[in-house]
Amino acid sequence: MKWTETLIATLREDPQEAEIPSHRLMLRAGLMRKLASGLYTWLPLGLRVLRKVENIVREEMDRAGALEILMPILQPRELWEKSGRWESMDAIMLKARTHGGRELVLGPTHEEVVTGLVAGEISSYRRLPVNLYQINTKFRDEIRPRFGVMRSREFIMKDGYSFDLDEAGADRSYRLMYEAYQRIFRRCGLEAMAVEADTGMMGGRESHEFMVPAETGEDEIAVCPGCGYSANVEQAAVREGQFNGARTGEAVREVPTPGLRTVEELAEFFSASPRRFIKTLIYLAGGKPVAVLVRGDREINESKLAKKLGGAQPVLADGETILRVTGAPLGFSGPVGLEGIGILADYSVAEIADGITGGNREDLHLVNVNIDRDCPGLEFVDLALAAAGDPCPSCGKPIAVRRGIEVGHVFKLGTKYSRALGAVVKDEAGGERPAIMGCYGIGVSRTVAAVIEQHNDDRGIVWPAAVAPYQVLVLALAPDQPGVPEAAEEIISALAPTGRDILYDDRPASAGVKFNDADLIGFPVRITVGKRFLRTGLAEVKHRASEEVHTVPPEEVPALVDRLLA
Amino acid sequence: MKWTETLIATLREDPQEAEIPSHRLMLRAGLMRKLASGLYTWLPLGLRVLRKVENIVREEMDRAGALEILMPILQPRELWEKSGRWESMDAIMLKARTHGGRELVLGPTHEEVVTGLVAGEISSYRRLPVNLYQINTKFRDEIRPRFGVMRSREFIMKDGYSFDLDEAGADRSYRLMYEAYQRIFRRCGLEAMAVEADTGMMGGRESHEFMVPAETGEDEIAVCPGCGYSANVEQAAVREGQFNGARTGEAVREVPTPGLRTVEELAEFFSASPRRFIKTLIYLAGGKPVAVLVRGDREINESKLAKKLGGAQPVLADGETILRVTGAPLGFSGPVGLEGIGILADYSVAEIADGITGGNREDLHLVNVNIDRDCPGLEFVDLALAAAGDPCPSCGKPIAVRRGIEVGHVFKLGTKYSRALGAVVKDEAGGERPAIMGCYGIGVSRTVAAVIEQHNDDRGIVWPAAVAPYQVLVLALAPDQPGVPEAAEEIISALAPTGRDILYDDRPASAGVKFNDADLIGFPVRITVGKRFLRTGLAEVKHRASEEVHTVPPEEVPALVDRLLA
Repeated sequence: MKWTETLIATLREDPQEAEIPSHRLMLRAGLMRKLASGLYTWLPLGLRVLRKVENIVREEMDRAGALEILMPILQPRELWEKSGRWESMDAIMLKARTHGGRELVLGPTHEEVVTGLVAGEISSYRRLPVNLYQINTKFRDEIRPRFGVMRSREFIMKDGYSFDLDEAGADRSYRLMYEAYQRIFRRCGLEAMAVEADTGMMGGRESHEFMVPAETGEDEIAVCPGCGYSANVEQAAVREGQFNGARTGEAVREVPTPGLRTVEELAEFFSASPRRFIKTLIYLAGGKPVAVLVRGDREINESKLAKKLGGAQPVLADGETILRVTGAPLGFSGPVGLEGIGILADYSVAEIADGITGGNREDLHLVNVNIDRDCPGLEFVDLALAAAGDPCPSCGKPIAVRRGIEVGHVFKLGTKYSRALGAVVKDEAGGERPAIMGCYGIGVSRTVAAVIEQHNDDRGIVWPAAVAPYQVLVLALAPDQPGVPEAAEEIISALAPTGRDILYDDRPASAGVKFNDADLIGFPVRITVGKRFLRTGLAEVKHRASEEVHTVPPEEVPALVDRLLA
Repeated sequence: MKWTETLIATLREDPQEAEIPSHRLMLRAGLMRKLASGLYTWLPLGLRVLRKVENIVREEMDRAGALEILMPILQPRELWEKSGRWESMDAIMLKARTHGGRELVLGPTHEEVVTGLVAGEISSYRRLPVNLYQINTKFRDEIRPRFGVMRSREFIMKDGYSFDLDEAGADRSYRLMYEAYQRIFRRCGLEAMAVEADTGMMGGRESHEFMVPAETGEDEIAVCPGCGYSANVEQAAVREGQFNGARTGEAVREVPTPGLRTVEELAEFFSASPRRFIKTLIYLAGGKPVAVLVRGDREINESKLAKKLGGAQPVLADGETILRVTGAPLGFSGPVGLEGIGILADYSVAEIADGITGGNREDLHLVNVNIDRDCPGLEFVDLALAAAGDPCPSCGKPIAVRRGIEVGHVFKLGTKYSRALGAVVKDEAGGERPAIMGCYGIGVSRTVAAVIEQHNDDRGIVWPAAVAPYQVLVLALAPDQPGVPEAAEEIISALAPTGRDILYDDRPASAGVKFNDADLIGFPVRITVGKRFLRTGLAEVKHRASEEVHTVPPEEVPALVDRLLA
């Protein structure tokens, strides 16, 4: 392909809106353009990368025995009511309504559709296992789309669903996908790690996320340098409280704290560590208020809280509710004497010595609170977000926390959807059993961005060969000089049998512009011919990643390119 | 691929909902399943066909120099307001609204998005021409989805858009696409014809539809057996009125017609041909009533009417409006003495001798109406839908009318969108010009159905080789018989180097079931091995289309298959 015959639109300046490298580089290198918030057009260069990632995903899914199908984007409301997710997932779903009044979901995921399909097609254990997948556009009503295709309203996903007769089969299907995912990300040039993850809105009993470690990632991963344990911090168990100093034995005392509401303000006022505070948050879960206690330096893990509350997604209560249930406005809640409301306490508050907490009266806090003495009978559970230094739930050594980008997620779903939607099969004995499901997602467009997050430098992208838009750039300096285009064409012809994707920069532009564009877009190998070639008969071959440069005669180019791309 | 390792779900019975062969066969052969009205899941077999059609489209678009991109499905309201289509296309658009209140269109087409993209990226004539296309899911709020993927709410389309500096360039781009479309449909095994078409909602000055002749098609095509002229009946000009007998010279006379409203009822009452009636329809165009006259045996062509009315889509007026403007309820309108309202008369009414028409009073009609005498000053224009027997607008011979399926549509759009969305480029002289656009669509999923409409028999589908889900079926009879699977594997290995797609029917099912499925799905070549092979060493090779049968040793199979698929 000639540069002048395609549409490559590089930008000289960094786009202001872009906060992270992949977003910035995808715009600057002309891989995509923004249409509106969270909506991007893939330009020819970007689409080539996207398709290469798609093909790697497709090949590995097929190799693992999964079957490709294509389900509708639009899904009828009734199906989502059957699974109970019409309401529970409302906040992130985009919906459309026909002129005739039918309500449709723009699929954020396809458990309902695929389970309904299998319910209709498969009735005997003989047809199991089956694993169906699709590569399709998905939708999510992000409140604040950002980071380009990393968190957008519309994106390409591979979603797959396995159906097995028994747990052993389901475990096998899960393992096959887990291994396929490892191969997929490796082939894309990604260093990805599988970490234990929360099952969240999908339900089910086990799940792993595939995380690409990156400073710009939105997820936090707890990693144990000791035993190798790794988990999303939302999932990582925080087993024990920690000892927080000796008790003085003094009685609880009231201290006026006019207008002081946050742990930071109060820590300063009391000259006390945030670790001495019993933070008391009022949540609403299914409309019912509940008080949740956690140590002042820690955060509540709402996923864990949801599970403790039986699945309903908790939301922080409004000021009016807080006033009604505690007697005080926001900022002055505490567990001492709090009645008529359930209290859930994180392990971290169990051993706070002489703690500080709200007094359930405006502008009042209590000091010298010892929770076993002053709030007797509380049970302590795991509600906190894991943090660096927490003991590893596996070996007890202190964990580290790294940031990561979630590119894939595999779940053991169990029978939640097969029961709700009737995916029941006859087993060998003639009995009926709901199929045991797994589901498996890969963010295809997000994977493109993750590759760039891991492979860039101050000049631009440094594509791994397998997903580069073109693997080789043949760059003609002074292409109007007789002999130069001929030399370029000769090298392109010599490379043709290798099956490499080749782009030919035939623009009548300056060497500076052309070299900068080549580095910015990040073609793995650049081959330059110009006046020097006319003098010496040698082409310059440069490897983007290693910056190795070779000057070789045209006939040696193909072997060198093979070596550099290996 | 082994049959037992994929998901092939043939049905023994015809599904009741299916009215046309392609719909019936796509369900029966297990190419797709219905999720809800107008929404279908493509199963593995169907998806293979869809992808093959997509790839043919992609190869021919690339060959013609078009560049593939991928635009968002969701499009912001503001863009559609700029082009003026937010309201004019409302009836067929599906829309979504974010929780934050943003209104989005689920793209039925992408003129607005692509023109906005080009406006941002291309500012000089040097970057023209450019032709951008995508293969993506499209949405249409069909009131009555039917015929399977032929008229569905969600479907796959290839849509492309060319941008040129001048008319000569735009004509060249149009021609390139026209020729690419001919190649695409030919490669899909379709006999398709390009016919002149109406530009409709797209606007522009010229357009052709690619029609697949089929009795089940929803479009009507006027074809001249004399000169080869062909056009959608909506587009075909109907130039002249026809002489309708001699006048008696009698005066207009009132005849009571209690409760008689339709041409059929009145023709019987008066014992007169429908050709003697001056049908008078009251339309609303942009809220304004207009009377439209056409001969009793003809239909109004609303596309032509819209153009005469300056583009506003006309709708038939309600009874209340009719009463207000004519003084009579629905069924008794006529042009004689009709005042305070514009009248448009089709050519066909010009020469009706002693015609019959409504009297603008309830239960009253007029006879002996001669329009030149009784409604002087009317101008006659072309407002009728062409019908069989009309004179060919090109050579005057009588036209025939055939039914067809529209699989592609190419438009010369002119500057409607480039002006509205600022796709303006500097020309060589430094002046600014809006780019001249063309747009080009192919219904990819509909093409699959059209192929089946043209290629089926009473046993099932008869796939053209290029788009068959698998080109070769190797069918093992009694696969549990020692030697049979080995023979099948040997033949499959021998065929491997040919690169053919091969499906291996390894099911332990009866010969009847297997042969019926093979014919129903319609693999181009079927190779059978079973006990007879064990006896004779000869495999049976059958060509689905010609029903040719050959018995040959395994080593001769590859050459024979090549010949049969050529």
